[in-house]
Amino acid sequence: VDLGKTFERNLDRYVEEWKRLLSFPSVSTDPAHDADCSACAEWLARHLSGIGFAARLLPTRSKPCVYAQRPGAAGLPTVLFYGHYDVQPADPVGDWVSPPFEPAMRDGRLYARGASDNKGQHFCVLKALEALVREDALRVPVRILLEGEEESGSAGATAALEEWKDLLRADVLMVTDVHMSPSGAPAITMGLRGVFHMTVVVEGAPNDLHSGEHGGVAPNPAAELARLVASLRAPDGGIAVPGFCDGMLPATETERALAAAGAITPEAYRELTGVPPTGGETAYPPAERAGFRPSIDVNGLLSGYTGAGMKTIIPASAMAKLTGRVTAGQDPAACLEALRRHLERSVGPGLRLSIPQKGVSGSGFRLPVESPLVKTAMAVLARVAGAPPVLQWGGASIPIVSALARVSGARPLLAGFGAEEDRIHAPNESFSLRQFRLGFLYAAELLGELAAAAPR
Amino acid sequence: VDLGKTFERNLDRYVEEWKRLLSFPSVSTDPAHDADCSACAEWLARHLSGIGFAARLLPTRSKPCVYAQRPGAAGLPTVLFYGHYDVQPADPVGDWVSPPFEPAMRDGRLYARGASDNKGQHFCVLKALEALVREDALRVPVRILLEGEEESGSAGATAALEEWKDLLRADVLMVTDVHMSPSGAPAITMGLRGVFHMTVVVEGAPNDLHSGEHGGVAPNPAAELARLVASLRAPDGGIAVPGFCDGMLPATETERALAAAGAITPEAYRELTGVPPTGGETAYPPAERAGFRPSIDVNGLLSGYTGAGMKTIIPASAMAKLTGRVTAGQDPAACLEALRRHLERSVGPGLRLSIPQKGVSGSGFRLPVESPLVKTAMAVLARVAGAPPVLQWGGASIPIVSALARVSGARPLLAGFGAEEDRIHAPNESFSLRQFRLGFLYAAELLGELAAAAPR
Repeated sequence: VDLGKTFERNLDRYVEEWKRLLSFPSVSTDPAHDADCSACAEWLARHLSGIGFAARLLPTRSKPCVYAQRPGAAGLPTVLFYGHYDVQPADPVGDWVSPPFEPAMRDGRLYARGASDNKGQHFCVLKALEALVREDALRVPVRILLEGEEESGSAGATAALEEWKDLLRADVLMVTDVHMSPSGAPAITMGLRGVFHMTVVVEGAPNDLHSGEHGGVAPNPAAELARLVASLRAPDGGIAVPGFCDGMLPATETERALAAAGAITPEAYRELTGVPPTGGETAYPPAERAGFRPSIDVNGLLSGYTGAGMKTIIPASAMAKLTGRVTAGQDPAACLEALRRHLERSVGPGLRLSIPQKGVSGSGFRLPVESPLVKTAMAVLARVAGAPPVLQWGGASIPIVSALARVSGARPLLAGFGAEEDRIHAPNESFSLRQFRLGFLYAAELLGELAAAAPR
Repeated sequence: VDLGKTFERNLDRYVEEWKRLLSFPSVSTDPAHDADCSACAEWLARHLSGIGFAARLLPTRSKPCVYAQRPGAAGLPTVLFYGHYDVQPADPVGDWVSPPFEPAMRDGRLYARGASDNKGQHFCVLKALEALVREDALRVPVRILLEGEEESGSAGATAALEEWKDLLRADVLMVTDVHMSPSGAPAITMGLRGVFHMTVVVEGAPNDLHSGEHGGVAPNPAAELARLVASLRAPDGGIAVPGFCDGMLPATETERALAAAGAITPEAYRELTGVPPTGGETAYPPAERAGFRPSIDVNGLLSGYTGAGMKTIIPASAMAKLTGRVTAGQDPAACLEALRRHLERSVGPGLRLSIPQKGVSGSGFRLPVESPLVKTAMAVLARVAGAPPVLQWGGASIPIVSALARVSGARPLLAGFGAEEDRIHAPNESFSLRQFRLGFLYAAELLGELAAAAPR
């Protein structure tokens, strides 16, 4: 079967259906759009039924998930495909060239909120599945989970995953909610970091004290918080919290070489962010620090007087917001605990430390470079995109991916065709027909290869 | 002359006049009270003329100062008496038992805003001067400066001091705007610290960055600010800024012993402030830390996200408010400069440090324990109060006192009868007739002794 030809023949219809999907303002963060989210989920379930899947809605404590499945040949690996039908808010609406929920094609790109993230990135996969079913070429068992709260924390789905364990059991967790390499080459995201967060408060006197009378006598919560935050890192930038790095999976020589090969230059990093890559551990190159090293980041600080001029006080309290990023092998709950213990042990006499908010959002993971699954995906990507794929190790977290991998027992495979110019989360989001076609072909060929080689 | 009898005979009139002075709502921080401040200054000038002084108003760029003088015998030391006629705002007015600007006597205490700070504390001195003039017993030349902006920074007077140099030239700078010992014993404030302030900003990327993608790669301004603040102090709590302590006058063994004798216990400190005295340099007892050691205090911190929950950002910038307290011998401008240099040298690569606000408010000073002036004042205090006086070294700053001492060439002598129960700056401020009488007798006897002994 020549799926390229199938794509060309059906493209007009694909685009019309994709436009219909994009016309739902399924903004999960805004309760005013709850009905739109439900309508979008119902449309998707009907659509999946129409292309040969047993589809239904799985209720959660908030937005429903769309679930679908189709059995395959015995002995072949089961693929669980994850995507999300919710989108970011469209504000500022006035900055859109065409209305965000009235999809418009211009110069080969479809413009709409969600055109890329994630409706475009998952609808091309659904069209590939449809094409395989119609050609009677879909041999692997496929399960589909499209959630409705990725943009607002995935709380409903995450809480229900254990309950859905049997529905989700799979061998490969296919995720396309990721980007190509900044160079434009196709890419596999080989790992993500886990994340936890914590709010730390240091309290002293019940009220602010006069810093003249009491400076150097009363303990200063703001100065102590600064000292505690500084104590989290060694002079070389490494994390100095005892026990934090327990279990951490060091990068292999191969991983380090591949990460270096895919890395952008310090100049390009500065161009992208406005700062040189001078944070973190000086002993490791920037690409390794994001991909293979943990990090504790200060997200916010607040204490005492912050207005114009001066106010001569020793503040009654000081607050820091921290997030920790942990790599494969580290247990984020144990890391949070190690940090809590370090802070509580380190706080100076006369002050009280408390942690009024804390939580773990997800674990990190890393795929082995040598795994047959990665090799298969690389071959498919190279063939489809006509360029050698890059392996990339991200520093960010997609908490539900780690949770889904754990519950389903599947190995995550993250490859998609998102690009910087899609402007996801911003006005005038778009996805090109070229990207849509790459996603279609990648999914179709990958599912074919998995049936042929049954790799893990 | 028995000034005790003079006091008793005239007390009713003194109180009526004191009440008149207190009835002016001379709140310097509130422009709505500008006319009240002027009226109060004019009343004082007329009053000083009436009791035998050549009095006038000295205009400044804001509130006028009341200036008065009376020549004395040749060869005797000139006394410059400093006070202020402005008061703190009366808010919250509803918490006052009697209205703040309708002075009311209850149980031997006069209740009104300014009853103690500073109208009561200076008016008893003016009444002593009046009594001495009437008895023809005022022999030393006396100059009086009553400013109208002490509660709002003394900017007008401070800017004009150099211009008034000839008017202010004196040998002894008499200040009663201070407290007795917490034990209730009369006290001489033997030193104050100088103060400077600085706002420090560390900037990174032009916008917040995603802390997942960039954590451990991009430099974090909030973490760096914490490290810089922590770098200001050595592990023993001492200041670790090169050059900061240059010129500092170490405490003598006598000063240390006297400070220890006047010190409150750690338990009493905790009772007073809510925290144990565990800040600053562990090698020095608390009373020495406030009196003889410099301090750098964090007054405020602000960076990134400070609301509920988490936000995964590397903040674009971070800000700290710092004040430095310096002791006798240290040049606050040089200390500010040393701190600036240390911060600018220490900031990590990829970040920009700036100091958008900074300034010196005043120097510190310390009186020699052995000086005849101190011995004379101690003898007077002991006789008047019937209890041995305590020498105390304060950690706070009265910037105009150092400036006045410098411009006038006079040695500052700080002794007054303020007490915790006066509740200055709070609702229901008061000053007792007993305190007023102590202030009257102290001033009258001191001026007599200065004429007799001409001590320095």
